[in-house]
Amino acid sequence: MPHTFDLRLGALKTAYSNGNLSPRQLIAALRDKAAALNPEFNLFIHLLTEAELEPYLAALDGKSPAELPLFGVPFAIKDNIDLAGIPTTAACPAFAYTPTQSATLVEQLIRLGAVPLGKANLDQFATGLNGTRSPYGACRNSVHPDYPSGGSSAGSSLAVALGVASFALGTDTAGSGRVPAALNNLVGLKATKGLLSTAGVVSACRTLDCVTFFTASAREASQLLALTATLDPRDAYSRANPLWNDASAFGSVRSGFRFGVPSQLEFLGCSESPALFARSIEQLKAMGGEAVEVDFTPFLEAARLLYEGPWVAERYSVAGELIEQQPDAVLPVIKAVLEKAPGTTAVQLFRAQYRLQELKALCDRLLDGLDCVLTPAYPRPVTLAELQAEPVKRNSDLGYYTNFMNMLDYAAVAVPAGFMANGLPWGVTLFGRAFTDQYLLSLADALQCRYARPLAGGQPAEQPVAGSVARHDLTRVVVCGAHLDGLPLNWQLRKRGARLLEATHSSPDYQLYALAGGPPARPGMLRVSEGGVAIEVEVWELPSSELGSFLAGIPAPLGLGKVQLASGAWETGFICEPYGLQGAVDISHFGGWRAYLAHRE
Amino acid sequence: MPHTFDLRLGALKTAYSNGNLSPRQLIAALRDKAAALNPEFNLFIHLLTEAELEPYLAALDGKSPAELPLFGVPFAIKDNIDLAGIPTTAACPAFAYTPTQSATLVEQLIRLGAVPLGKANLDQFATGLNGTRSPYGACRNSVHPDYPSGGSSAGSSLAVALGVASFALGTDTAGSGRVPAALNNLVGLKATKGLLSTAGVVSACRTLDCVTFFTASAREASQLLALTATLDPRDAYSRANPLWNDASAFGSVRSGFRFGVPSQLEFLGCSESPALFARSIEQLKAMGGEAVEVDFTPFLEAARLLYEGPWVAERYSVAGELIEQQPDAVLPVIKAVLEKAPGTTAVQLFRAQYRLQELKALCDRLLDGLDCVLTPAYPRPVTLAELQAEPVKRNSDLGYYTNFMNMLDYAAVAVPAGFMANGLPWGVTLFGRAFTDQYLLSLADALQCRYARPLAGGQPAEQPVAGSVARHDLTRVVVCGAHLDGLPLNWQLRKRGARLLEATHSSPDYQLYALAGGPPARPGMLRVSEGGVAIEVEVWELPSSELGSFLAGIPAPLGLGKVQLASGAWETGFICEPYGLQGAVDISHFGGWRAYLAHRE
Repeated sequence: MPHTFDLRLGALKTAYSNGNLSPRQLIAALRDKAAALNPEFNLFIHLLTEAELEPYLAALDGKSPAELPLFGVPFAIKDNIDLAGIPTTAACPAFAYTPTQSATLVEQLIRLGAVPLGKANLDQFATGLNGTRSPYGACRNSVHPDYPSGGSSAGSSLAVALGVASFALGTDTAGSGRVPAALNNLVGLKATKGLLSTAGVVSACRTLDCVTFFTASAREASQLLALTATLDPRDAYSRANPLWNDASAFGSVRSGFRFGVPSQLEFLGCSESPALFARSIEQLKAMGGEAVEVDFTPFLEAARLLYEGPWVAERYSVAGELIEQQPDAVLPVIKAVLEKAPGTTAVQLFRAQYRLQELKALCDRLLDGLDCVLTPAYPRPVTLAELQAEPVKRNSDLGYYTNFMNMLDYAAVAVPAGFMANGLPWGVTLFGRAFTDQYLLSLADALQCRYARPLAGGQPAEQPVAGSVARHDLTRVVVCGAHLDGLPLNWQLRKRGARLLEATHSSPDYQLYALAGGPPARPGMLRVSEGGVAIEVEVWELPSSELGSFLAGIPAPLGLGKVQLASGAWETGFICEPYGLQGAVDISHFGGWRAYLAHRE
Repeated sequence: MPHTFDLRLGALKTAYSNGNLSPRQLIAALRDKAAALNPEFNLFIHLLTEAELEPYLAALDGKSPAELPLFGVPFAIKDNIDLAGIPTTAACPAFAYTPTQSATLVEQLIRLGAVPLGKANLDQFATGLNGTRSPYGACRNSVHPDYPSGGSSAGSSLAVALGVASFALGTDTAGSGRVPAALNNLVGLKATKGLLSTAGVVSACRTLDCVTFFTASAREASQLLALTATLDPRDAYSRANPLWNDASAFGSVRSGFRFGVPSQLEFLGCSESPALFARSIEQLKAMGGEAVEVDFTPFLEAARLLYEGPWVAERYSVAGELIEQQPDAVLPVIKAVLEKAPGTTAVQLFRAQYRLQELKALCDRLLDGLDCVLTPAYPRPVTLAELQAEPVKRNSDLGYYTNFMNMLDYAAVAVPAGFMANGLPWGVTLFGRAFTDQYLLSLADALQCRYARPLAGGQPAEQPVAGSVARHDLTRVVVCGAHLDGLPLNWQLRKRGARLLEATHSSPDYQLYALAGGPPARPGMLRVSEGGVAIEVEVWELPSSELGSFLAGIPAPLGLGKVQLASGAWETGFICEPYGLQGAVDISHFGGWRAYLAHRE
């Protein structure tokens, strides 16, 4: 058996299904590998013993990958997330406690067949973006020894990057699930707040915290999210996932998507990052995207609120008591961050929350009509030496493009996007409105395939596939009659915030009838096996959540089904029941409703 | 011209359209009437002078009710809402300022043709539920001189109840738009937070404040909401209204709606309120509703958080500076409420916000599957003498059923529901999830018609009409094939949180075909002019926001249109395009998909 396994979900499933590998074999080998790596990388605070692993492996006996979607999949758990029976330290020994119940998400994963390998190192109390703020040792980068792993989910990123785990759980309040992903050639998914349960997770900022997935590929993150997004009664901040944000519901490829790019870019003097970012823009354009400049001022102001405003008091509410009782139990750099919290008043917090709400309203408007936004993952990487010289400033540098995300309730994915000359991975972030996770991941998948290169741990790179793009919170509808631009029922679309994407034709398979009744006069478009023509139609885009009420307002004999466009693509659009054609007039020869109306006048 | 006008929107429109009345005539008469009432009721802090009224009247010259939906409709404005050029006092002379721009909502109403009559009296800083906490005089009840008007929107409620205005604007943070409605035989609409702009409103609690409508009838409140709900760039807390919450989109009557009733009822010893509330439950049952007991504990805990927790600091952030600089400028009772605020820390506020989030999760679960909840508007009315004896306690009594609403982000309507033996109006509240406003109003309309009685000011009572019930955030879909309970695609409904409402039949106008292709095997249901039969179908209910993604997943030749049920009602349901019947088999004689499947096995 080779020392390097292909740990990606699909590859493991194949290996297990073929009988080439058993979970016991794999886990034992990975345990050895992790133990060998730990002295240098400090990635695990606690690696599970054989005895501790046994119950998870025993649960798989007699089971198969066909029954359990994550059968025998090894994963690492950031050590601020509970695994029953194992201490949770949050990288602060004095804070440690041993939970009797695992975090909901850990329970879900184990129930799906996944096997926890150990508790991964982190910046203490998840307060940091670099991976060096731990009494369990600093985490160096998986590729380049002069650089940090990134944090705070430091060990989690290393476990995947070094080929010890298929995926890892991190947390992310200000970028902790994205910065280490980018620094280690990984995908880091900070899903929409509330989609992944945070029950059983040590809070950093309770109102902002997310659990994250580190994976080698965006496709795996998409699978994991689809398997685990849930409304958890144990987590009051949990939210139901609208089903357009479901990996199983892929739409047709959507060219001409619009991605925002910050109008003010900051690379903090880095000579390589600007070109790397420019290349990622070109890649998205090559995928069919259109770049749109976005004023980044309000995003950056929201970011500053996180550490300069009263949200520090949230962190203090977790570790404050310990700091007061045992000042030396907490690292000086963490204490320095939290120290200003106790004096903050409720009035100050309310005022900061008002300001945040104003900024969110501004940012939401900037995102209107965009499918996503592309930013660098960080202005530039920082070295371990730089971090040692200026621990707070250099750490802050890493959060420039990440700090605002949870504050503004957006979904974000860090995606590998090339390498520096010295071999260090470089990354970008795709972010968008809440509940557009699967769409972002489908774009991330396509982008990642353009940059394919193996992980530091030897895990193979992604291969391009003819991928489709997932649905998101905007959906298309094909109209052919009174809903056309400027016609009597068009307001039903506009009132829902719809915009006209395209005026085109149907495939040449339709007949158009002027229905009896009205006003307003309405046509019925009928697909036919022969004798059809192409009919003038318009494609509109409206919020997915509004399509249902639009449908509900459509009277018989009309309805919404699937209409084929001249391009060959099928889209949701108007159809007509045949009984409704009684008394109707065939107007197909006009080629469209507008031409018929013009003739009638 | 009689001294008492029918000021309801429809009646005024008719009077203006017929030429029986002009805005100048009406407004002059109402000004005189208000001036005559003011010494006794103290309803207006400032009644607009003829000169101040002139620009609004002049703007109507040459216009007609056909052009302006609120042509010449008189309204009153609570004096914590800006009207350009007129001081906003918030019932605190030392706080007063003169705005140069009106509140967004006031601007909207004026643009629609409405005419502002004056600025209405209120409990100072909108802090109170009784209407006596004002240096501009206490507001007595419109019907009974021993009782208060209720507050804090005291003068607003009186303006409508006494027949001086068609409607009035109030505000509501803890019940200020509902308690005075119930005490004066009015409808009080506290719409979903963010639907009505609060730009240009003096904050009480910025995160909770709503502007409200007082009207004689629920139908008028529905019209006003439909005309003014908007996403306002001036208000960061503004939210877009999903279009199922649109008065214009009425669904068919829905019998069997489920309304919650608190399992723990509190009437504070009142001898009449229990019977009045029991009667309102019977009325809803007579309308087709089913009463469901709801544990009220978490609602009441959320209510207590508002005044016992750090939200008082929000109020303090508005009036605190003035209290510090001029302690005597603020009423002692208001000062007493706000005094505890300055010491509250940000950590305390965060913890209270976490607790509120937990309570909201609990309450939301209790509301799952319910269409609305019915409560008394207050446990019992309190007299002016009782208020004088115990100003804080008796005020709190009035908020027992209202304080939690804005904290939990629910929509609520106070509805008249009978009278005490002494003639004092009594009321109930219908509340429900955010964005169910129009549905609540349609139920309120039906309920109100059952209690019809004129207002104190002589305005006629509502007449029962054959009303339909508005849509809300749940919608029905009729399925006939693989989506039936237990069949292969049923998970598509269940994953969206759908529940089975009814197993029934279509009207006898359909044919059923087994379509070619699959798996899964699918039928097509075709409406026919003759030779049709009744087909077994199921009616499911799912979130309105999820209907669109359900539709998007349906492949050709199927779609969703309107299906007629055995009851005669038309519902959204599966239809089939005729070209899809190529190779299909007529299985109508089985009477349904299940019977066909059973036969095939």
